[in-house]
Amino acid sequence: MQLPAGIRLHEVGPRDGLQVEKTVVPTEIKAAWISRAAGSGLDIVQVGSFVHPEKVPQMADTDALFRRLLASGAPTKRALLSGLVLNEKGLERGLDAGVEYFCMGVSASETHSRKNAGMGTSEATRRIVAMARQALAAQRPVQVAVQSAFGCGYEGPIPEARVLDICRTYVDAGLTRISLADTAGHAHPEQVARLYAALLSLSPRIEAACHFHDTYGVGMANVFAALAAGVTSFETSFAGLGGCPFTKVAAGNVATEDFVHALHRMDVRTDIDLQALISLARDVAAFFGREMPGRVYKTGPVPAGLPAEATP
Amino acid sequence: MQLPAGIRLHEVGPRDGLQVEKTVVPTEIKAAWISRAAGSGLDIVQVGSFVHPEKVPQMADTDALFRRLLASGAPTKRALLSGLVLNEKGLERGLDAGVEYFCMGVSASETHSRKNAGMGTSEATRRIVAMARQALAAQRPVQVAVQSAFGCGYEGPIPEARVLDICRTYVDAGLTRISLADTAGHAHPEQVARLYAALLSLSPRIEAACHFHDTYGVGMANVFAALAAGVTSFETSFAGLGGCPFTKVAAGNVATEDFVHALHRMDVRTDIDLQALISLARDVAAFFGREMPGRVYKTGPVPAGLPAEATP
Repeated sequence: MQLPAGIRLHEVGPRDGLQVEKTVVPTEIKAAWISRAAGSGLDIVQVGSFVHPEKVPQMADTDALFRRLLASGAPTKRALLSGLVLNEKGLERGLDAGVEYFCMGVSASETHSRKNAGMGTSEATRRIVAMARQALAAQRPVQVAVQSAFGCGYEGPIPEARVLDICRTYVDAGLTRISLADTAGHAHPEQVARLYAALLSLSPRIEAACHFHDTYGVGMANVFAALAAGVTSFETSFAGLGGCPFTKVAAGNVATEDFVHALHRMDVRTDIDLQALISLARDVAAFFGREMPGRVYKTGPVPAGLPAEATP
Repeated sequence: MQLPAGIRLHEVGPRDGLQVEKTVVPTEIKAAWISRAAGSGLDIVQVGSFVHPEKVPQMADTDALFRRLLASGAPTKRALLSGLVLNEKGLERGLDAGVEYFCMGVSASETHSRKNAGMGTSEATRRIVAMARQALAAQRPVQVAVQSAFGCGYEGPIPEARVLDICRTYVDAGLTRISLADTAGHAHPEQVARLYAALLSLSPRIEAACHFHDTYGVGMANVFAALAAGVTSFETSFAGLGGCPFTKVAAGNVATEDFVHALHRMDVRTDIDLQALISLARDVAAFFGREMPGRVYKTGPVPAGLPAEATP
């Protein structure tokens, strides 16, 4: 297995994890969690999304959080703070709030796009490209995504050509940080390998990112298929938070600390403080008072082992 | 991703799953579960192990189960019934009971071997090779395993040369169905790819099998790494049962129905009745009255999706 150089980790728990929770996490607790994640050696931490506060009350403090986190004096070595924006108003708020890394995207599913963005995929793509170029013009790095890239809860299978068409539009507009999101958790490793190979063949300038939900038990297998395919940026969530805890369909993200643990087993990104991430995941699980999908926060890392003669 | 031809599935839940449960499952319930697994299209189902009944009370009915299952009249299309044997006495019992596929193995960890088999790895290897040849002489197929092949809870890392030495001894003795078992769950995908490549380079006659526990969240990723490396036989457990539910270290096997679901997504082994496996896993979980690690028995399969114009 060939590992790509320069693997980047993007913690999305504070946004994708918390937005589906019924309990709204108080701003000071969120700020503490984000600071700990940002200080652990992860590369990017997603603070929240700029949506209408009435639509997603859990994200109502995103602007305040950015101001608070940025005012607290950036340590010399901490993650970039990313924010998800869905429309022009959100972009404006994000630019104002000091977002350091912009995330925005389009759904490859026409139905999902209409439900989520209120418009079809083509119109949404034109809009997102314009927003992304505006953010770039303001000297902020931008990652553009294709949501429902591996299948859609409404439409089922999504033709790969639809996904690649959106990606081609991105590349043509100079947007080369591209994330494919498995919004519904339908992806399987063979599809992941194939779609990323096609994506990366569009342009050598592409930096590919991935975002997998573990709905059907292959989330981590998809992450490793993406890694083997040359993906260099990985979106994961502390304790595996994400998806709706009030339905039978468990759909958390791949757990950050589980992936970092696996990377450490392969001697990769050992600069990241795994113990700090485990302790963070434990605190997040304790806050919500239930067992989360992540494994390593429960088991601890693989023990080093004792020399044979010292074991009982 | 290149998929090997002829993927075989070996259900080990009735043995590896049930042996760690405090509740002893009544023989008639076990027999019903095994029959359902064996009739679903899986290739091999492990009925139990021939250990001393006082040592593992959950396995005390293994001989009786074989007799009962074999007497009930084999349907024309059902799985082979496998049995795990640990010593000569067990082999004798297994031959008597009508085991159709023998499983036996050696731990690559000296400490684990002494604890589990009462002797070191070299002596255990000589013994298992002799037993395996005896079973072959009785016209029964045999699979030999290396336990703790990817790391040991006592010793930590296990040198790959130790694992390959045992495998070479197996091959030299004409034993070419070889399973590597990740007893402690320490494996990671890169290691899996490397070790199976080395194993398969020993002889073109080898049929490689794998057995992964999901202790640290990479069980399914390891299964897919094995698949990509050319492994053709997969040991999994219904509902992801396995490991000890009374410790904090969750260590179930990869769930059979999750793996079959993923294979079906890739259009592989669609002859297997996934709905039968989901229903079996649900009944197993209901019997124990707790949530099991498997995902798909809770979510159901990925829905086919509705045409865009038909969705609400």
